Parts: sequence; structure tokens; C-alpha cells
Amino acid sequence: MRAVVCQNAELRVEDVPAPEPRPGQVRLRVVRCGICGSDLHARHGSDAWADMAARSGYRRFARSDQPIVYGHEFCGVVAEHGPGTRPEIAPGTLVVALPFLRNGGVVDPTGLSLHAPGAYAEEVLAEQSMTLAVPDGLDPEVAALTEPMAVALHAVRRAEVRRRDVAIVIGCGPIGLGVILMLKARGVRVVVAGDPSPGRRALAERCGADVVVDPAVGSPFAAAPRRGQVDDMVAAMSLALDTRERLGRLPVGWWHLWRLGEAVGAGPKRPVVFECVGAPGMIERIVDGAPLYSRVVVVGVCVGVDTFTPAAAINKEIDLRFVLAYTPLEFRDALRMLADGTVDPRPLITGTVGLDGVAGAFAELADPDRHAKILIDPQRP
Amino acid sequence: MRAVVCQNAELRVEDVPAPEPRPGQVRLRVVRCGICGSDLHARHGSDAWADMAARSGYRRFARSDQPIVYGHEFCGVVAEHGPGTRPEIAPGTLVVALPFLRNGGVVDPTGLSLHAPGAYAEEVLAEQSMTLAVPDGLDPEVAALTEPMAVALHAVRRAEVRRRDVAIVIGCGPIGLGVILMLKARGVRVVVAGDPSPGRRALAERCGADVVVDPAVGSPFAAAPRRGQVDDMVAAMSLALDTRERLGRLPVGWWHLWRLGEAVGAGPKRPVVFECVGAPGMIERIVDGAPLYSRVVVVGVCVGVDTFTPAAAINKEIDLRFVLAYTPLEFRDALRMLADGTVDPRPLITGTVGLDGVAGAFAELADPDRHAKILIDPQRP
Repeated sequence: MRAVVCQNAELRVEDVPAPEPRPGQVRLRVVRCGICGSDLHARHGSDAWADMAARSGYRRFARSDQPIVYGHEFCGVVAEHGPGTRPEIAPGTLVVALPFLRNGGVVDPTGLSLHAPGAYAEEVLAEQSMTLAVPDGLDPEVAALTEPMAVALHAVRRAEVRRRDVAIVIGCGPIGLGVILMLKARGVRVVVAGDPSPGRRALAERCGADVVVDPAVGSPFAAAPRRGQVDDMVAAMSLALDTRERLGRLPVGWWHLWRLGEAVGAGPKRPVVFECVGAPGMIERIVDGAPLYSRVVVVGVCVGVDTFTPAAAINKEIDLRFVLAYTPLEFRDALRMLADGTVDPRPLITGTVGLDGVAGAFAELADPDRHAKILIDPQRP
Repeated sequence: MRAVVCQNAELRVEDVPAPEPRPGQVRLRVVRCGICGSDLHARHGSDAWADMAARSGYRRFARSDQPIVYGHEFCGVVAEHGPGTRPEIAPGTLVVALPFLRNGGVVDPTGLSLHAPGAYAEEVLAEQSMTLAVPDGLDPEVAALTEPMAVALHAVRRAEVRRRDVAIVIGCGPIGLGVILMLKARGVRVVVAGDPSPGRRALAERCGADVVVDPAVGSPFAAAPRRGQVDDMVAAMSLALDTRERLGRLPVGWWHLWRLGEAVGAGPKRPVVFECVGAPGMIERIVDGAPLYSRVVVVGVCVGVDTFTPAAAINKEIDLRFVLAYTPLEFRDALRMLADGTVDPRPLITGTVGLDGVAGAFAELADPDRHAKILIDPQRP
């Protein structure tokens, strides 16, 4: 079968052996596979990722000189069951699956390990136990976004955000946009989004952000509400004022009074900030800019060593919640939300290519104004 | 009056003008004042602290070349009320007070700003509104520990720790010891404490730690329970096993199964770790060593720039909760807990000196085996 193989940062379409399902597995004919930002990063930085994974005990992450097939955001049609596997999902069914494969006692992440080639290919393997049928009528293009939307759902769930909280999303790539969609689906009244790209800011608005901010012009933490959009926005946004400005008027010690209010139940809510960039220095910048008591959910993955100032986080009593992926139940819930229209991620999809177009798509994704999510249709000739 | 003045890292006893209470304030005759670890740090690093405070908007923190009187952990006897101040607390009453003074629209931290000299002196000012009478019968030596015990109470409250959680306290200085006391007062069954100093480990045991660990010998995260001490300790401690060891057996992907359990309510509790050291690199070390899903409460103040690896925290879904000081209600509760015997911090008190002994006490506190908390009795001739 044909697959896109990445080796030494070079993407080539090659003929590779078709995968053979083991007991408990299914072979899928891939219908759509998303290009994930982590694939873009892994292309040039997979050794750092492999080192990081090894530090956590996993030593089968692909290294840059190994021929890896990416692709962990996919939907496909069941083509074959592994030997001795009871066909709980009938051949011909359109499915999505959690991107993990059992290999003996080890579980390998699909599209990130040589032991589990991904879905930048005509066919891919999945565990039947981690496979879900796509509900009738759901567009395969949308179903292929189940995985990144599950990431966003998990981040929002871990944030424990309430409807009256102010949510501030820093970075409007596909994950940031997914977080905006999930926040609005949860009924959060005021969602502020910040991104330097005008194109990404336009997508953030299409995903439901109430306020969009160019960080080169203003702070997302100080964004002024647009009149009349949400009736209580003025009150809600006052929480998101720049803290340094507040502290200039009400210096250290004032927080005791605020705290006193908090302790008796009359105090402010903690603003919730989503870090969806994953670049070095972002955590420090957010700690510096965020209001007192902010809960910061770190969704963007910064693989390298970063620097920050703990005392700055202490002065504001910041919570940093680091989040990873999703639970199987969240994956299921994300699929349901796509199927019943609770979230509509179609604004994210900015292009579809065949396998021959993947290298070009990687290049185009470097321009955030043009693209957010490009899907691969491996059956396209 | 006599006071210990610190300037350019030199501690000298000097005659300074007695403080004059403004409206709403009281003048206290100091009975005891604790030497806080932050005083030791400020002696040599106050410029970094002043820079840090300025970054949060407070620009009246004492700099190293200014003559500062430290002391924010004090109890004293009310000697005089400010002009026009209704004497809600009668002269002669033994009191503790939150260490903050109003100066016009500004609130200055007592013992850390030239605008609010501290209690390394015969007399100190306090806001009557932030002053609490010491209940009859409470030893002034114990009452003087209200402030650091409020810090510990706040950290434990912010941790949202439950009785069946495993709590791991890294660093057994006065704050770490206070956290141990507050954890046991809350009924937390298993408290593990780690410190390189044998003397500090002995104090941790006296404060109620169930397991004490020398980090040079073993990991506090992998500490073996001592037989028979707490009946369910073996079960509880299994949560605190070294994660890297776990992940070696159960690699990436396994957490999905754990998560599935978590999602249906059968999963593990998040272990709670208290960082009570405040040195560079501690956060990274804790992230590396702590179990999956640990909630890390950062109590130790690392003022400088620190380095850490966000992806390591992401891989384990770590929560970092940075905490600062306490609310007025927590300060009140800490005093109550000292008065009714819920916590007994007397093991922490390892010495008492007069003003002339402060410079020597600073030197002695460099040896963690000999001392934890040294109190100053400024009336001692």
C-alpha cells in the first residue's frame, strides 16, 4: 500500500507492506487523517520527544533517522478483523479509534512509534476495543476531528470551568480553536481568544470566541468587551483586567481584603486561561500577564527546557494544570458531540490533500493565516 | 528603643525612634518574634525580592542598602492606641497581628518595608483591625508561631487534601514542619516527609510524620511504610511508588486504562506533594519524581529564574498550585488551633535569644541539624 514515510525530516510517498491485524485488532481503510501540529513538530524534533518519552519510561518513540508513518487523527472503514477476533464492529463500518496499539505487554502510540505506523497511509490498524462506529450521517471529515476535539474536551474538563467564568484562550491553532468550541458548547459566557494571526483570529470568531485580541496590539487579559455582545460582559471582563494595572492602584496587602471576601463566599471567581501555544517562554508570559488567582491549563506541549520565575506565580497564587490527551470516555463524548452538532469544527478544516500532497501541506501549514487543519484523503489518486 | 537593623547584610542592634501609631493602629511591646527563613534569605537577597515585588506592582520593598528592621511573626502586649482610635482591644492585652500596615492608600508588609519596621525591636505597630487577642493560657512562645502556622494552614487548605490521600512533604524547615502538623490535625492518614538533615527528620517525626526519608538514601515518593503504624498504609503507599519504575512496567498507554477507572470513579486519588524548600531546580525534581497526577503545592519561595521541562509535567498531568501567605480567617483559625491544642508547634522552637543574640542566631540557623525556629525576646537585657 502507499504511505507517507518521514525520515530525517523528509516526507516521501512509498510503497510499504499492508499492516496485518493481530488478535483483537482491526485493519481500517483510511478515509481521512488530520495533520496534527505535533506531526509538524515531530518531523524536526522527534529526538527531543523520544528523549522526553524515555524519561517517562517509554523507549519506543520514533527517532528522526527512523522511517515513521505519522497519523493519529483518523477515521476509516473496517476492512478486516485480526485472527480469532469476534467482529463486534461489522466490516464496512465507518469508525474512529483511539490511536494506541497493544504489542505484547507494551502499548504503542499510533503514528509516533515504528511499532504502530499511523494513518498517513491507505490502511492503518486499531484495537477493536478502542474503536467506535461513526454515527450515521456524520461527515467523515468531521469524524476525523474526534481525536483533537477529545484533547480540547479533556482540557476544558480538567479546567473545571463554569459558565460564568471568564475563559482566555492563548493561541488559536486547531487545539486552541477546539478549546473555544468546547467552552462555548459548555455554555461559558465569555471566551477571549488571543493570536497574532488575523486568519486564526477570524477562525476563533467563527468558533464562537466573544472577544479576539491581537497580542501585538493589546493583552488578551485586558481585552475590552465589544458593546452589547454579552449582557454581563462588562462585569465579567473586569476580572480579566491586567493585574499589574490593578496592583498599581491596590498594592500588595489589598489581596487580603479580596481574600477575606473570597473566604466568605463573596469573592471573585478564578479566571481560567488555556495555554495552547507550547512554545518556550509562554508559561512565564502568561504568569506575568494573567490576573491574580488564575487557573492556567497548559495544553500546548513545550518539549524542551523552559525558564520561569516561581515567585511570580506565588505572588499571584497561580494554578498551573498540565493536561495530556483524553480518557476513552472523553474520546467517546467528543464523537457524540460532533455527531449531535453540539460542536461544529468545520471552520477548522481549511484543506484536503492526497498522500502526494502531504509534503506540500506541511509547508503550507507554516503560514497560520492560510490554514488550520488540513486533512489527508489517502484514497485520492 | 532598641532594634536589630539590617543594612548591606549586616545585623546591628541600634537605638531607633519608638514607632508612633497612626489612627486605627496600636503600638505593641514585643514579647516574642520568630526569625523567619525569608528574613535569612532577604538579608542576602532583598534586591531580588524587591525586583520581584516591583514586577507585581509593589515598589516599597526594602533594598539591601536600606536599614530595615525585620520581624513579621510576633506577639506583643498592647501599649498604646493611635489618635482617635477606639480601644477595641484593651491596653495590656497579649495579641498577635497580621503583619501589614496601612500607609495612606498603600498597604506595606511589616518587617519587609522601610514604611513598616518589623518586630526585631522592643516595639512594633499593628492595625487594630488586623489584631487578635491571644486566648488566656496560650504561651506567648506558641502564639508567636501563629503567622507561620497560618502559612501552613493556607497551603494545606489550598491543597484540597483529603484524609485518605497520601501527602508528601519535601523539606522540613519550619514551614514544612508546620505543614506536617496541619496535615495531621486535618486527619490525613499518611504523611511522608523528606529532608537531608537528620535533625530535621527527627523534628518531622515529632510533628507527626508517619514516614521520614533521607533523599540521599531513597525517594520520598518510594518510601516504604514502617510496619503496623497505620493499618492501611501499604495500600496507601502504593500510590506513592516511584513513577518511573511503574512506567517501566506499564508504559505509555496504560494510563488510559487507569483513566478509564478514574472516569468511572474507581480510580486512584491524586497524591499531594508540598514543596517546602524553595530552591532552584526543586520543581523539576518533584515533577520528575512524583507519581502520575500528583497535585504539587508550591509553598517554598524560589525568587530567581528557575528551569523546568513543561512536557515532563504534561506527561504526568501534574498540577502545580502556587500559594502565598494566608487569609485573615486562616490567620484567626491558626491562632485558635494553637490555643485549643489541635496543633502543638513546640517541637519547632529550638532556641530563644535577646536582640543582641540575633546575629548569632542567623549564623546558627545555617545548620539545619541544630535549629528550626529561633524566637527573639526583645525585652531580654
